[in-house]
Amino acid sequence: MTELPTSPLRLAVIPGDGIGPEVTDEALKVLEAASPVKFEQSRYDLGAERYLATGEVLPDSVLAEIKEHDAILLGAVGGKPNDPNLPPGILERGLLLKLRFELDHYVNLRPSRLFPGAVSPLSEAVLGKGEIDFVVVREGTEGLYVGNGGSMRTGTAAEVATEVSINTAYGVERVVRDAFARAQRRRRKLTLVHKTNVLVNAGALWWRITQDVAREYPDVAVDYLHIDAVMIFMATDPARFDVIVTDNIFGDIITDLAAAITGGIGLAASGNVNPDRTFPSMFEPVHGSAPDIAGQQKADPTAAILSAALLLDHLGHADAAARIDAAVLADLSERGGSGRRTAEVGDAIAARI
Amino acid sequence: MTELPTSPLRLAVIPGDGIGPEVTDEALKVLEAASPVKFEQSRYDLGAERYLATGEVLPDSVLAEIKEHDAILLGAVGGKPNDPNLPPGILERGLLLKLRFELDHYVNLRPSRLFPGAVSPLSEAVLGKGEIDFVVVREGTEGLYVGNGGSMRTGTAAEVATEVSINTAYGVERVVRDAFARAQRRRRKLTLVHKTNVLVNAGALWWRITQDVAREYPDVAVDYLHIDAVMIFMATDPARFDVIVTDNIFGDIITDLAAAITGGIGLAASGNVNPDRTFPSMFEPVHGSAPDIAGQQKADPTAAILSAALLLDHLGHADAAARIDAAVLADLSERGGSGRRTAEVGDAIAARI
Ligand SMILES: CC(C)[C@H](C(=O)O)[C@@H](O)C(=O)O
Ligand SMILES: CC(C)[C@H](C(=O)O)[C@@H](O)C(=O)O
Repeated sequence: MTELPTSPLRLAVIPGDGIGPEVTDEALKVLEAASPVKFEQSRYDLGAERYLATGEVLPDSVLAEIKEHDAILLGAVGGKPNDPNLPPGILERGLLLKLRFELDHYVNLRPSRLFPGAVSPLSEAVLGKGEIDFVVVREGTEGLYVGNGGSMRTGTAAEVATEVSINTAYGVERVVRDAFARAQRRRRKLTLVHKTNVLVNAGALWWRITQDVAREYPDVAVDYLHIDAVMIFMATDPARFDVIVTDNIFGDIITDLAAAITGGIGLAASGNVNPDRTFPSMFEPVHGSAPDIAGQQKADPTAAILSAALLLDHLGHADAAARIDAAVLADLSERGGSGRRTAEVGDAIAARI
Repeated sequence: MTELPTSPLRLAVIPGDGIGPEVTDEALKVLEAASPVKFEQSRYDLGAERYLATGEVLPDSVLAEIKEHDAILLGAVGGKPNDPNLPPGILERGLLLKLRFELDHYVNLRPSRLFPGAVSPLSEAVLGKGEIDFVVVREGTEGLYVGNGGSMRTGTAAEVATEVSINTAYGVERVVRDAFARAQRRRRKLTLVHKTNVLVNAGALWWRITQDVAREYPDVAVDYLHIDAVMIFMATDPARFDVIVTDNIFGDIITDLAAAITGGIGLAASGNVNPDRTFPSMFEPVHGSAPDIAGQQKADPTAAILSAALLLDHLGHADAAARIDAAVLADLSERGGSGRRTAEVGDAIAARI
């Protein structure tokens, strides 16, 4: 407990839809139990419900308010699958990605660890190769996610639709630097993932910058894998990874697989981080809003709770973050097959802090 | 054995680099043993070796000759990793993808089956959910693979590099139709995979066309999954899949994971198919040239042999293809941990035909 209490931090809370509010409640419960510093919370009702009721996704005034906070905690947003009133992309592009882009969350941070007691779908033979403990540093503000594309002759048999992946030296360098710094604080191994043999332009940029930055980190071993090869290693030898750095879409794909092999997205936390602190960073579980089980206290709040730990760590409270991690670890080891309610999990973890 | 022998078929053989020639020899051995029809072979030395020796990748005259064949059997191409004389993309874009595009291989066909005796990295709990037997119909001539991109201020701190995914109604419809037809001949379930919530333009096109074609196949159940969700299901419940249809890059990624969970790319066959037969289709194992074990008779030729079965099936010899499949199956069940030489595996499978 080396941290000194400071003045209250401003926390923007976006509980969202479905199971979002339930898991957010537990994350806040644990956050308060662990944090050496007080949080002043402001709540923002954003997500599918608000959009369906009002047509609003993220009003400019709300975005401006959110920017005035020290950090953001998000539950999950999203409506019922295939709701005709909620076309795909509305919330994703208009809210989640808008926040990532507007707040310059260029480091999308996704740790993956096989916690004791968590059930991996991988065989004993694979798990026996070593401990699974890696972090994916996914670029969050470029690539195929920039929304640069369109379609012509839309809806006809002559339609052409495009999506442009835009990558800049500026954008690649800052995320690669962040990944190297993290690797140096961990097991000193960095794996660049791309598809340089097909995406020769973007691939060459990522490759060049990784080689350049590597020269400043002679103690970090650098490896390169094509995205398709990563699929094989995730399934057969995930213990080989320490820090993975990759672009936005490959990172999206890898991190869901990483979550699956470490016991499911019920446990996967993430941070949308702005390391320069020019805007607040945002922390959220990787899972979605799971409307089918919403409001039933069936959702596992662990991913949201671990996201709160990432939030504390980002704000400089590494010890408090470690206390949450340890409490989750202890809880998971004893959890067994018991079907505890959402709040019971939160209570149990908070009690261990 | 309902097939009648016909006049000899012309087969273009591209053994390639590394383990390519070894596995191709075994594939040809089994092909000859199983086929009711004679093949006239022409061999083409293409790949890393030829490029490094002559600077040639795929001369126009060679491409013109290859087009005059009924089918192509390819081993594997590729040099040593990170060979400075062989920049990434030279062989991929100049040879493999050039063939797929020039010969209009719009159906990149990749069956995945957990053969008895094959060792999956998935746990017994996952494998117990049901038999893994699905096929990925990957679009082969569009998307991010079109080579439409570039870079400006290349090599500087102000570089911008782009990759454009181009998708057409023409291109999507023909591959979606092929996938529905296959689903109807199988377990009648089709899963469209995309990322419609982010790639809204290309996603809308794939979605619309799949819905349209689905109306003509009322007996095929249609499902949709985002590419990231597919990662989770591949790891936790792959038995749910029957036919997956998806774009070029997502198909590339999914099929390596599919290969991994069904025992590794040593067993994964593929066909680059032109269903309209305007040009010869090409069959190849999914694995690479593995230069580290080349020429040592260590490579498993099973994927190449199964690719030969796909070739026969494509040419209308379904019975002969089934005989190869059955022989491989029998061989795999008895294979155990024995480290047989490449030629021994080929001999054993050929002997069972
Ligand atoms: C919901 C979607 C926009 C998002 C993404 O693709 O980044 C999600 O899948 C994630 O990984 O956070
Ligand atoms: C070698 C490469 C161009 C190729 C691809 O990306 O299609 C390979 O990975 C494959 O899957 O056949």
